Amino acid sequence: MADSSWTSSAESLKGVILDLCGVLYDSGEDGGTPIPGSVEAVKRLKASDLKLRFCTNETQASRDKFVAKLQKMGFDISVCEVFSPAPAAVAVLKDRGMRPHLLVYDGLLSEFESVDQTNPNCVVVGDAAGNFTYENLNDAFRVLIGLEKPVLFALGKGRYYKEADGLSLDVGPYMKALEYACDVEAEVIGKPSSVFFHSVLSDMGLQPHQVMMVGDDLVNDVGGAQLCGMTGLQVRTGKYRPSDQQHRSVKADGTVDDLAQAVDLLLGARAGPL
Amino acid sequence: MADSSWTSSAESLKGVILDLCGVLYDSGEDGGTPIPGSVEAVKRLKASDLKLRFCTNETQASRDKFVAKLQKMGFDISVCEVFSPAPAAVAVLKDRGMRPHLLVYDGLLSEFESVDQTNPNCVVVGDAAGNFTYENLNDAFRVLIGLEKPVLFALGKGRYYKEADGLSLDVGPYMKALEYACDVEAEVIGKPSSVFFHSVLSDMGLQPHQVMMVGDDLVNDVGGAQLCGMTGLQVRTGKYRPSDQQHRSVKADGTVDDLAQAVDLLLGARAGPL
Repeated sequence: MADSSWTSSAESLKGVILDLCGVLYDSGEDGGTPIPGSVEAVKRLKASDLKLRFCTNETQASRDKFVAKLQKMGFDISVCEVFSPAPAAVAVLKDRGMRPHLLVYDGLLSEFESVDQTNPNCVVVGDAAGNFTYENLNDAFRVLIGLEKPVLFALGKGRYYKEADGLSLDVGPYMKALEYACDVEAEVIGKPSSVFFHSVLSDMGLQPHQVMMVGDDLVNDVGGAQLCGMTGLQVRTGKYRPSDQQHRSVKADGTVDDLAQAVDLLLGARAGPL
Repeated sequence: MADSSWTSSAESLKGVILDLCGVLYDSGEDGGTPIPGSVEAVKRLKASDLKLRFCTNETQASRDKFVAKLQKMGFDISVCEVFSPAPAAVAVLKDRGMRPHLLVYDGLLSEFESVDQTNPNCVVVGDAAGNFTYENLNDAFRVLIGLEKPVLFALGKGRYYKEADGLSLDVGPYMKALEYACDVEAEVIGKPSSVFFHSVLSDMGLQPHQVMMVGDDLVNDVGGAQLCGMTGLQVRTGKYRPSDQQHRSVKADGTVDDLAQAVDLLLGARAGPL
């Protein structure tokens, strides 16, 4: 039986933000597979009076590429509805006149084509996966330690994500490695940064208390959204682990089996008393 | 002109502990080269009435191998005078009945031959250098995250060391990556752990205030020794950086150009007033 106390605020909601990986689909070698019921759940949300956006820390492909992948899985989703760290980072770099050394997945490089990368004065680290060789991490370290004031940007700070064959290290641990090596604190661009969530709210034209975030990552999705004043709902798919329910600092407003159940309960509560 | 105020306590000293890499020699592709004057300086210390030990976080080779390398460079040094993390870790693992998953340099594996490594219930991370691939770090992460209570041992926690072509990441950043990924705190075996320094003092039969540690690493050599009550002297060789002198928490008792100068000043002060 799902805890449905979170639906008490369903009537006052005007918008929903969905995480992608672990909520809509599970990643894997073949590009990933939709989580059962999620294609239909997105359709039902779109048909409702709620505004809908997607907010991801996906940094293994350009936004065009991974949106195309989701469309191929059957999701009704377009690029302009999706917020991801790389375009946000490009805006910050240009605004501050910074030239990055990039430690990212090959598929993300095209997002940074418009940014000057000569004679780097900062490092941008994303989920580089197989590109996280000792040599590549050391190259990024040498750029940082050679700067008078090392500046490190991290595209998210997730600990790990779920792949078909098990959990895999995300960008966060590598961000921590560079932070420790150079005695700096990274600026996180992406979830759970409030700046990032507010850019989504601003695009929706809504206030935080009018919006619910649905994610599988307790700290970065649920906790980040709550810190902004949004409702944070966790799904038991993706990287969810039972120990999340005893987390020492973050407590989800509600926990549901999957996106399909979240949408059932949410739209049901908005239609009338349960 | 070297600051020689630290020599005021020279008369009461009864022993010296030397770090190896960055004090006796600089590492490099070809196994490394002695720092000028250091072979002679070790000889002079050995000929004095001071007790001498060597204390290293070297984990890229077994103790036999790297002592043989130092002997080949001309140093008067034997295995029983050298304290390094791997033998200390083996003792801890056996004492606590733990079976390690090893993420270490190939050259260190032989040190762990006597330890059961089936069905691991902890991870030991050392300076694995090129073995720090994404896949290997992920394998170690999966072992840890699969344990009810993850236990992580780190062979030292150095940030970086100096090689012929520049600074290189040490074990510390990778320890931090695993700590963050699994929300655990590593147990450090090696410098700056007090347990480790006390095992050296015990072997010397001396009290902390009777011993001086000489190293190039401000935090792990100098700071660690000072926390035990020893005098901590830093050399301006190896990984020394001018910014060390403005460190926010560790201040060396003295700083000298190199080991040769340290031994000159130390033995000179013991022979009579400067």
